[in-house]
Amino acid sequence: MNRFKLTAIISYFLSVPLMFFHAPITADTEKISNVKNVIFLIPDGMSGTSATLARLYKGEHLVMDGLASGLMSTWSADGTVADSAPAGTAMATSWKAQSGNVGITGEVYDFPNAKTPPETERLRPVASLLEAAKLSGKSVGIVSTSEFMHATPAAFTAHDISRKNYDNLTEQILHNGLTVILGGGLKYLQVDERKDNEDMQLIAQQEGFSRVNNTSELMAFDGQKLLGVFAKNPSATSISYDIDRDKDLEPSLSQMTKKAIEILNKNDDGFFLMVEGSKVDWAAHANDPIAIVSEVLSFDSAVHEAYEFAKKDQNTLVIIVPDHGNSGISIGDRSTSTSYNKTHWSNFVDPLKNAKMTGEAFEDILPNNFRDQSIEAFTPIISQLVEQNFGITDLTNEEIKSIHEAKVGYMGYAIGPIMANRAKIGFTTNGHTGQDVILYSYDPRGKLIGGLLENTELSEFIAKSIGVDLDRTTNELFINVENEFKNDSKVIIKQNDDDPENPVLILTKNDDVLIIPRNKNYVTFNDDKIFSKGVNIFNGTNWFVSESIISLMK
Amino acid sequence: MNRFKLTAIISYFLSVPLMFFHAPITADTEKISNVKNVIFLIPDGMSGTSATLARLYKGEHLVMDGLASGLMSTWSADGTVADSAPAGTAMATSWKAQSGNVGITGEVYDFPNAKTPPETERLRPVASLLEAAKLSGKSVGIVSTSEFMHATPAAFTAHDISRKNYDNLTEQILHNGLTVILGGGLKYLQVDERKDNEDMQLIAQQEGFSRVNNTSELMAFDGQKLLGVFAKNPSATSISYDIDRDKDLEPSLSQMTKKAIEILNKNDDGFFLMVEGSKVDWAAHANDPIAIVSEVLSFDSAVHEAYEFAKKDQNTLVIIVPDHGNSGISIGDRSTSTSYNKTHWSNFVDPLKNAKMTGEAFEDILPNNFRDQSIEAFTPIISQLVEQNFGITDLTNEEIKSIHEAKVGYMGYAIGPIMANRAKIGFTTNGHTGQDVILYSYDPRGKLIGGLLENTELSEFIAKSIGVDLDRTTNELFINVENEFKNDSKVIIKQNDDDPENPVLILTKNDDVLIIPRNKNYVTFNDDKIFSKGVNIFNGTNWFVSESIISLMK
Repeated sequence: MNRFKLTAIISYFLSVPLMFFHAPITADTEKISNVKNVIFLIPDGMSGTSATLARLYKGEHLVMDGLASGLMSTWSADGTVADSAPAGTAMATSWKAQSGNVGITGEVYDFPNAKTPPETERLRPVASLLEAAKLSGKSVGIVSTSEFMHATPAAFTAHDISRKNYDNLTEQILHNGLTVILGGGLKYLQVDERKDNEDMQLIAQQEGFSRVNNTSELMAFDGQKLLGVFAKNPSATSISYDIDRDKDLEPSLSQMTKKAIEILNKNDDGFFLMVEGSKVDWAAHANDPIAIVSEVLSFDSAVHEAYEFAKKDQNTLVIIVPDHGNSGISIGDRSTSTSYNKTHWSNFVDPLKNAKMTGEAFEDILPNNFRDQSIEAFTPIISQLVEQNFGITDLTNEEIKSIHEAKVGYMGYAIGPIMANRAKIGFTTNGHTGQDVILYSYDPRGKLIGGLLENTELSEFIAKSIGVDLDRTTNELFINVENEFKNDSKVIIKQNDDDPENPVLILTKNDDVLIIPRNKNYVTFNDDKIFSKGVNIFNGTNWFVSESIISLMK
Repeated sequence: MNRFKLTAIISYFLSVPLMFFHAPITADTEKISNVKNVIFLIPDGMSGTSATLARLYKGEHLVMDGLASGLMSTWSADGTVADSAPAGTAMATSWKAQSGNVGITGEVYDFPNAKTPPETERLRPVASLLEAAKLSGKSVGIVSTSEFMHATPAAFTAHDISRKNYDNLTEQILHNGLTVILGGGLKYLQVDERKDNEDMQLIAQQEGFSRVNNTSELMAFDGQKLLGVFAKNPSATSISYDIDRDKDLEPSLSQMTKKAIEILNKNDDGFFLMVEGSKVDWAAHANDPIAIVSEVLSFDSAVHEAYEFAKKDQNTLVIIVPDHGNSGISIGDRSTSTSYNKTHWSNFVDPLKNAKMTGEAFEDILPNNFRDQSIEAFTPIISQLVEQNFGITDLTNEEIKSIHEAKVGYMGYAIGPIMANRAKIGFTTNGHTGQDVILYSYDPRGKLIGGLLENTELSEFIAKSIGVDLDRTTNELFINVENEFKNDSKVIIKQNDDDPENPVLILTKNDDVLIIPRNKNYVTFNDDKIFSKGVNIFNGTNWFVSESIISLMK
């Protein structure tokens, strides 16, 4: 033996590109000089394990890997495991909220040490980072693979008691001064999908949006204000999983991100962009590991776009953080309880590499009438299709039954566990989970954020980084109309519900008449159309408008 | 409404003590000035979720929380989910190894991008951070709640093909120049537990160790070199779970850590201390959430001791990182698949707060003959005991059966899932899992380590931080004897297996005779006892001794 050989080989490996060193300083965000742009990327529902699994599948490092810098806590105001609405709200507005709440404070705050608004400020719309950035002169945009009015993008762009109120959310988003909206949701732009029968496509046009409808139109776009809503077919609510994607009709998340940055970056005052890898979460709900891997890798490509831009630009903060965990995914399951240290890593990913699509796409290639077929007739058909598309040749009768009985839109919930079982990937739940999520960051100022943050602290940090004040913005955009005039007997306030889907608040004072329509960015004042800096919100009890609108009646 | 109230309340919360900011720099470890001391704390098998759950249970932040700074990958050389032996070896020596390997390189290296030794260097003992620190003049020590020759502490202090060879590991550890050994393992110090019938207690005495046997003796100790082996009873292999601990006989992990620091810090040249929260892992194997919480909190108290010392000392690097994940634990399970966002956080911890002990301790209070009782006779007894000790009043027949049938030493595997079910805590496996673990760090030089590290990169970083070279130390401590003299025909090498449990290598050259006993830190050279800088290793095929021993025959 040459006793120095070991050293020689080691020196080859001394470069450590994924490590970094960082200097902790006492947190005094006031002293941090501003950055111009923010790209805030959210892999919805991504557990740490999902990133590890995606790396294993890819066989090389993710862009995210080198940016890991700390942890974030994800609980709701009332300490439930968060759904994406309050989770997004906390990260967008610095206020924890409750299940379903979008861009408003919650009613109950009992999570230990939660930043708590006063009793009088519950269910109040609160300004998002995106809105504050917009008011400071920046261009703002959202990119998602879900419908663009889904909980996470909506938390940055709209305000409602419930994430389910798509009619309100869509209308607010289109009126909220965005420069870029890219994602799914074609279905919800149809007039007959809305209770109020308003034409969202017309509103988008009036708001100055150009429209693109497929990948080549997106990539060719060179205008100012863009609405791109993509779908494999008219009934689709979201963009397909990346592995299933129709590359002509549906752009990738990284393509959308790149184009969004290109458009937003035309503003000399900077931009704020939110990017959501929405369906990491949906894949986790289904316990479909191939869908999870597909979406994490697709998301990571979008991170690549953001990171490359930021490194060149040197004036852009990049934050990457999931809103919450999901599915209790693990690499290893009950089948490896005692054999984990004899199970080669390829056992976890080789079965996934055989998959040509997710369970969601598999549903589309099954015979239309398969649920009406007898299990006897179905068995040979499904066995062949599963072998062709997932490389699985040993389906059990129980598994065939689970596919046969899968409800419409839930094929991933049948195929996912079948794949997971082969790949020894464990799941504990079809729901979200409460663990801390991993915070990744890139900051050109040379200081990264670490330790454990509350999700609300993260938004405070970002706000200070771009020199905006979320609370001041809230007080600029969302004044409670009734409260504001409760001591002014000359102002008469009346809600008109003649059109129940489009309630209107009417204020009169002497000869002045102010008409406030819900979800719009304008009011009518003595027959003049006056634009607001934000959108008019009715939370079901109270109306909120911007300070500039209030001042019309002062 | 006072429109400025929101702002007023917010300002109250602006302090963010758990966040820090850090400056990434290009990783050039050569330029980093040295620290004097290292405290390397390992919560064995702690998944990120376990830390979140412990925080929820405690109702306040963990000390660790504020130190989160990145991620670490945990795979073995051959890409299996690591057991603690190769996982510890990677972190201790900078070399990935294979299942069971302690302080030696593996045979097979096929994990992508793994730092790989040449073929001729497989199964070679490799120096640990602790050994390199010792050779540089520092005092070194290990603290664990497991037996002190268990895989993780052994990876820093011994070298063997298999973690199971306790006879070898114990003997090497006692001979390896440590200043502090604190932990469990009393059983393995008994002469009749060893195949070679050597007296380890005598060896410890000869090596200059003082002995302490309980908490008060430990706390009162004021000497130079300490062996403290603690047990609730003589047959115990480890220290009890913190919640079950006999506080007189068994010190806490933080008490042991504090005392270890106190002793080691007497050396002006500094120290290296490894601290393992060993039974976080055992609790996870059992899927026993109360045991997990108990051990994470106990571990965090040890982190507190280390962190407080380091903050005052300003010359101590603190690294906290699990060696691997375990159990696929999640906050939320199948019972919350659709109700997670309606499930208050207290539902996850209140059932755990009713527990007075772990399943392991519960086994001790059951009637000795319970396995011989009929299930009918056992049912009322167990129902009462479970209610008294865990607050559970709705045991199912199946659960009673699982307790009744629990094998000796495996009661945690029955009680754990019963507790977990009430607390809606999910588990996917009784084995280790492959996800990245969270890296926590405190570095007085003002630069923390982040991004994603391989476990092998972490030890390279620590080595450079204290100015030692692991490869050079390996070449100083572990020379392959046969290889070294293969071209020297005058040296005759013969292994003497007369005592098969204590093989001896005999080298003769002219009139010189060198006798190398296995696992010892000395040799006999022409009837003189010559001490080595390390221990003599026989890996089953080859013998390895330090360079200074080799030079005797040159």
